Amino acid sequence: MTATPDIDASALWSDIEALAGITDPDRPWTRRSFSRLFLEGRDWLRAAFEAEGLSVRIDPAGNLIGRIEGRELPERVVMTGSHSDTVPDGGRFDGIGGVLAGLAAIRAMRAAGYQPRHSLELVDFLAEEPSEWGLSCVGSRGMAGALGARELALTGPGGETLADAIDRIGGDVARLDEARRDDLAAYVELHIEQGMVLEREQVPVGVVSGIAGVVRLKLAFAGEAGHAGTTLMSLRQDASLALARFQLAMRDAAIAAAAAGEGHFVATIGVVDILPGGANVVPGRAEIIIDMRAESSTLMTRQVALFRQLAEAAAAAEGCRLDAFTQISNVAPAACAPALREMIAVSAAERQMASRELASGAGHDAVFLSQIAPAAMIFVPSKGGLSHCPEEWTSPEEMAAGARCLLDTLLKADAA
Amino acid sequence: MTATPDIDASALWSDIEALAGITDPDRPWTRRSFSRLFLEGRDWLRAAFEAEGLSVRIDPAGNLIGRIEGRELPERVVMTGSHSDTVPDGGRFDGIGGVLAGLAAIRAMRAAGYQPRHSLELVDFLAEEPSEWGLSCVGSRGMAGALGARELALTGPGGETLADAIDRIGGDVARLDEARRDDLAAYVELHIEQGMVLEREQVPVGVVSGIAGVVRLKLAFAGEAGHAGTTLMSLRQDASLALARFQLAMRDAAIAAAAAGEGHFVATIGVVDILPGGANVVPGRAEIIIDMRAESSTLMTRQVALFRQLAEAAAAAEGCRLDAFTQISNVAPAACAPALREMIAVSAAERQMASRELASGAGHDAVFLSQIAPAAMIFVPSKGGLSHCPEEWTSPEEMAAGARCLLDTLLKADAA
Repeated sequence: MTATPDIDASALWSDIEALAGITDPDRPWTRRSFSRLFLEGRDWLRAAFEAEGLSVRIDPAGNLIGRIEGRELPERVVMTGSHSDTVPDGGRFDGIGGVLAGLAAIRAMRAAGYQPRHSLELVDFLAEEPSEWGLSCVGSRGMAGALGARELALTGPGGETLADAIDRIGGDVARLDEARRDDLAAYVELHIEQGMVLEREQVPVGVVSGIAGVVRLKLAFAGEAGHAGTTLMSLRQDASLALARFQLAMRDAAIAAAAAGEGHFVATIGVVDILPGGANVVPGRAEIIIDMRAESSTLMTRQVALFRQLAEAAAAAEGCRLDAFTQISNVAPAACAPALREMIAVSAAERQMASRELASGAGHDAVFLSQIAPAAMIFVPSKGGLSHCPEEWTSPEEMAAGARCLLDTLLKADAA
Repeated sequence: MTATPDIDASALWSDIEALAGITDPDRPWTRRSFSRLFLEGRDWLRAAFEAEGLSVRIDPAGNLIGRIEGRELPERVVMTGSHSDTVPDGGRFDGIGGVLAGLAAIRAMRAAGYQPRHSLELVDFLAEEPSEWGLSCVGSRGMAGALGARELALTGPGGETLADAIDRIGGDVARLDEARRDDLAAYVELHIEQGMVLEREQVPVGVVSGIAGVVRLKLAFAGEAGHAGTTLMSLRQDASLALARFQLAMRDAAIAAAAAGEGHFVATIGVVDILPGGANVVPGRAEIIIDMRAESSTLMTRQVALFRQLAEAAAAAEGCRLDAFTQISNVAPAACAPALREMIAVSAAERQMASRELASGAGHDAVFLSQIAPAAMIFVPSKGGLSHCPEEWTSPEEMAAGARCLLDTLLKADAA
């Protein structure tokens, strides 16, 4: 090594502007997985990876991977990366920030003449955002061996199966087993926080303690529909009022759970269907979906049981009944590796940057990587907590600070 | 007069079964205005009217009218009737109960040799239920001069205008002015209650005090959409929670208003739209329609102002704001004529039947008739308060009791 590696902040920022600029011009910032624009972005990435001396391939699961062979332990891999696809009308940082910070770290190593002990890989995971095929984290699932026949048979635009779509963009589903990895020494991903904690506390580096599990519940409150003009207030069994009671009770219970000292907890009712839905009909039915996120599986289990009690009580208080309470999905929480978390915190401290531990409420490719490797995440601040929208913003200084922390963490992981 | 007129209960019930039986066989009980089945029903009615000696015509507004000339005041009319159309999947009583009770009263008069002083008219009003043209009370509006160019230009199935549809079923829109009436001495309509008051109190005759006015308001609560996983509970501005608070506060206020001694009051939120509507997004916006019904205009005005205050307070309590509060429709309440109400109550008492005053929360043709004549309504019980559904039910005995009260009221109105 000829010098201490350091991040070229302006090159990083110019990379972000260039790749973000590959967007549907009518709805910035949009670069949907499997689309023409997505492939255009990958062409740009492949060239940028190769310019830093990486050998580039697409694995059978459709992940774009750049690699430097290690000089001491070439068969063991230190991996970083994130994803280059976006949600519709998304932002300029979610996903590419992590890929390009990884590229900046490799650029810094190369400029300093640093030759890694382990092989080093930089990955653009395929389709991290929910795609038109109804699945998220497609590439990282493939890498973790979690992409099965059911997922591959999902159909997207024009009836194309996910299997065919993966093959179309350069994967090889027939050889999907070869995408599965057991050679990872560490995985470290930088991502924007998508929340307000770091901004509020003016802390540049978030050390992710774990990635919350997600449970989705479908509930239905059943009352009695009636004529809005003739059904006296005192004789109503209005299912929407049972829901209103439940919403307020659930929120109070969620605040209490978040303060329980068992890590991150949030609960949201984003989907509401009031039936039959006529202006002149007292609602007879209210159907909702609850999205619950918890770092702790035991807290999640407890809250699901509590929410059922609260829903039954709210229904009873309005002369209604709880007609459905069904778990429709369940992704377990992922803990981040303590050794890597420590490396991130020490890296920040050595650069005189404050850091704090926080949970990720959003899902990430790191959830699946954590199933096959020690995995950790670095969060950088999101202005106003905004994400998945054009206003998503992390400043050049914040991106550079995060990339420096990522660089130093990768160096420590390589040295370990 | 050779005898005291009395209702032939079995003829009335057999008429109800016959006309109700003219229904779409796949979805009983359905006889939509302007449809082939509706015209089939009218052919049946015309024959039944003529069998009781009525001369039958269709007025320019499309109302089917049977008439007996008065022997003393032929130019002044005592009118009764209701409507033969139904909502989709409706019941066997809403509408035809009033037409056929009127027919039973005329049959009773005829059987007793009673010759009315005033001319007597029995009307099947056109399209009382909201039709595919988006308008209710088409025929009674026409009779009240409340059917204007805007309404006539409404389009229904196949792009047919309401004007063309009225002409098609036998009306004559070019002569619509002639449908307007200024010769009515009284209008009395029998209808099912569509509520639970009479059944609960076991009272066979409801004397309608007035028909509630209807105000519809459109409200929007605006908060801040956010990621359901990353937005901490304490940092949310969830528009659906502002709505939940408002729903419960509005209900309490509506109960208080209903108990204020100023007549019927109900308020309903039957239309709810939670946006953007994703399971993983904290709701940023909640849009609703409130349907308010009040017998008293001053109570209505006061409640609208109160609801605005409650909405603003609910929004503020959740860090949201009230983004819209707009009146989208307003139908004034209609008071029933005191002299006719008295005749109904006395008629019930003379037959040893209990009666009570109550408001109509639903709209009726009588709303428009009250604009051109002293008008009143008799309600008969609805089992379980159910209406606009196949389970709608009034027993043969209850129908006959109501028809007797209608008969005697018409006799009193004719004598007045």
